[in-house]
Amino acid sequence: MSISQQYIDENKDKFVEELFELLRIPSISTDSTKKDEIKKAAGFLIEKLNELDLERVELFDTPGNPIVYGEHCPYDDRPTVLIYGHYDVQPSDPDDLWDTPPFEPTVKDGLIYARGASDDKGQAYTHLKALESYVKSGEPIPVNVKIILEGEEEIGSPNLVPFLEEHKAMLSCDMVLISDTAMFDKDTPSITYGLRGLAYMEVEVTGPNRDLHSGVYGGAVENPANVLCEMIAKLKDEDGVIQIPGFYDDVIELTGADREAYTKLPFDEEAYKKSLDVKALHGEKGYSTLERSSARPTLDVNGLWSGYQGEGAKTVLPSKAGAKISMRLVPDQHPKKIAELFAKHFKSLAPDTVKVEVREHHGGHASVTDLDFYGLKAGADAFEDIYGKPALFSREGGSIPIVADFKKVLGVESILMGFGLTSNAIHSPNENFSLKDFHRGIKTSARFLELLPEYS
Amino acid sequence: MSISQQYIDENKDKFVEELFELLRIPSISTDSTKKDEIKKAAGFLIEKLNELDLERVELFDTPGNPIVYGEHCPYDDRPTVLIYGHYDVQPSDPDDLWDTPPFEPTVKDGLIYARGASDDKGQAYTHLKALESYVKSGEPIPVNVKIILEGEEEIGSPNLVPFLEEHKAMLSCDMVLISDTAMFDKDTPSITYGLRGLAYMEVEVTGPNRDLHSGVYGGAVENPANVLCEMIAKLKDEDGVIQIPGFYDDVIELTGADREAYTKLPFDEEAYKKSLDVKALHGEKGYSTLERSSARPTLDVNGLWSGYQGEGAKTVLPSKAGAKISMRLVPDQHPKKIAELFAKHFKSLAPDTVKVEVREHHGGHASVTDLDFYGLKAGADAFEDIYGKPALFSREGGSIPIVADFKKVLGVESILMGFGLTSNAIHSPNENFSLKDFHRGIKTSARFLELLPEYS
Repeated sequence: MSISQQYIDENKDKFVEELFELLRIPSISTDSTKKDEIKKAAGFLIEKLNELDLERVELFDTPGNPIVYGEHCPYDDRPTVLIYGHYDVQPSDPDDLWDTPPFEPTVKDGLIYARGASDDKGQAYTHLKALESYVKSGEPIPVNVKIILEGEEEIGSPNLVPFLEEHKAMLSCDMVLISDTAMFDKDTPSITYGLRGLAYMEVEVTGPNRDLHSGVYGGAVENPANVLCEMIAKLKDEDGVIQIPGFYDDVIELTGADREAYTKLPFDEEAYKKSLDVKALHGEKGYSTLERSSARPTLDVNGLWSGYQGEGAKTVLPSKAGAKISMRLVPDQHPKKIAELFAKHFKSLAPDTVKVEVREHHGGHASVTDLDFYGLKAGADAFEDIYGKPALFSREGGSIPIVADFKKVLGVESILMGFGLTSNAIHSPNENFSLKDFHRGIKTSARFLELLPEYS
Repeated sequence: MSISQQYIDENKDKFVEELFELLRIPSISTDSTKKDEIKKAAGFLIEKLNELDLERVELFDTPGNPIVYGEHCPYDDRPTVLIYGHYDVQPSDPDDLWDTPPFEPTVKDGLIYARGASDDKGQAYTHLKALESYVKSGEPIPVNVKIILEGEEEIGSPNLVPFLEEHKAMLSCDMVLISDTAMFDKDTPSITYGLRGLAYMEVEVTGPNRDLHSGVYGGAVENPANVLCEMIAKLKDEDGVIQIPGFYDDVIELTGADREAYTKLPFDEEAYKKSLDVKALHGEKGYSTLERSSARPTLDVNGLWSGYQGEGAKTVLPSKAGAKISMRLVPDQHPKKIAELFAKHFKSLAPDTVKVEVREHHGGHASVTDLDFYGLKAGADAFEDIYGKPALFSREGGSIPIVADFKKVLGVESILMGFGLTSNAIHSPNENFSLKDFHRGIKTSARFLELLPEYS
């Protein structure tokens, strides 16, 4: 075992303690009242980078949340890896469904429970500790590294692309390394080579100009909550096919080979259903569950509200009803175009008894990485060395729009080396990340950096 | 002018001040944390009844909120009027849509703005002050009166019928007098002879056992928010006809004469639309707006919730989605039967990918009063004497289920002598009641008591 791997084993507990410190900071980017926590998390990371004796460590201000940057590039003849992660997290609500406080990390049965444990504080932190394992054990970091940790991933990274464009020279690299995805299962490491894109919309239907008494007005006046339901119901047909005209126009269909590859993945549909406690699954007709959750576009209601939601009964005919509706996209769907098609179609579904507003939240492009890229191979072998099992290459349903952005602005591929699991409950109550995977993640990252020069 | 009518004119401001005191108490019955406020409102009314030198004043405990009772029956040969009202109010939310605080009554342009101003504190209080106008001016109250003021009307009066049954002898009377409805318009007093019933349901659709990441699971797993919308959309067809099998079975159809009467009511549909700021109205095909809002059954979503409702975007595939859905009923629909038909049908609409729960909140029967009843005639003439215009007889869309209960338990008709207006925004932000109608209401009530012996 190398000295650096040994260092990682010896400092296992110290690394967990540090991660806990970071997890205690509620750096929720969707909540504008949490600006101080965002700063605190960024400050913590700067402090940790400063301990690594890098050539450069800097906190960059943006019009939004700051970007943490580090750089150490002593080699002329070795590849440069840009490590990307994010220190902002999703909101923790509904808080009452958490078994332990979301911002007080708690270990139970080998799992760290906390918001951000997996997405992405825990995963991003593995790379910082991999670098430490070289620096502190007296070995040189084997390749050139740059580190970029942003605080706006959960709100669509509005300031990242401008930052990439502005600092294109500084950020030049041979590949981006990202750990913000899941392994296929706890015994099967995997490298994600495809991600879905996203178009996220918010709609509001307004009927009468005020909440009305449902007895006095009911039957005479259109109810915007009923109308919203009717409009949403029309967005998909019974076969789960999205009814927005032009929605599928730019979708690259799965090839026979793609579909063949899917059938070889070790997927147990019965166990999947059981873990979700559902009797049956449902989605676009003609595609398998894995295809539907990773390589086909979707339309999901993410939030819904109208009228009285409190205890008991209130006989109100609401003035307004609203919904958050998002679509996962696949290559080559364009998020802006899809948002426009959605808005146009949604408005066309409205009867003349209501007014409809549609606005767009963040969006992002889908991406698929070239499987022949040497970085992917080094990643797969690093996984195999640490996990004792070859890594699978898979497509994942989530969105990391910046993967497409890195390709576009910096011209490089990303290696999505996920240490999480789909059971990590990211974006949900009781988010978790296993101690074991945190530890193996650090070792895999260090191993990857060690292997990389040989493959390039 | 009689001495009592003169007293009412002279004490106009004092009456308003007293009403304000009552309106300042947030006696919200749907909110279980407001028990003390409920007691306070009941105590205020007991105090006011005690000032009237009645034969009996008593606060009755119930398993829920207390019932305020008063009685003064000196005559053997005159009719007995049971005055009914309620001192509980609807919740005030959404509070941010109120222009003035809901529990700090404020007068603007001749209107008292406060929760309960019209429904029903303001209207119920008119009768107490009408009684005072006799007692304090030295005239005897012209008929026997009993007063019953409850604190659970807005939650379906769960303890009123048991109370009526237990105290049937004490409550025996010739008619019930209720002011909890609206006049046809501000210049047209009206007596409501028909009310709709109510069946109020709450539904919950559960998909996966936890909130999921919409990227990782979207497309593979049924989304309960989408499903809820689809199920609600199926409850009515495009013509606004309710699709629950058996729903219309017991509906007594409007007769030709009924429909003819509706066409004679002074209703300005353009002004109605303008006041609601809607371009078009919509409801059950084949019926006029007034028919739909008063004599036809309805189905309305009163509340809707699922997933993330906060600021920004959260990519969650929600575990649950819920709705409050109520149906207004007409004679002879039975609320229990309709609730059962709804539950059965709603469950039948659920795909096998979700679990559905349906539960019933309060309900009540519709009612129609016999137009030949002498009490109605006395009421109409009292209105004409004070408003200078004959009162119309109309059906109203709201529900006062206890009207059917009074008929069933005590065997008497109710006289719905409403002093409110549909523009009073009851159950909505900025509820109001005009100072003028409060004053005229007191005078009409006093005049009614004076006329009644002549008509019996």
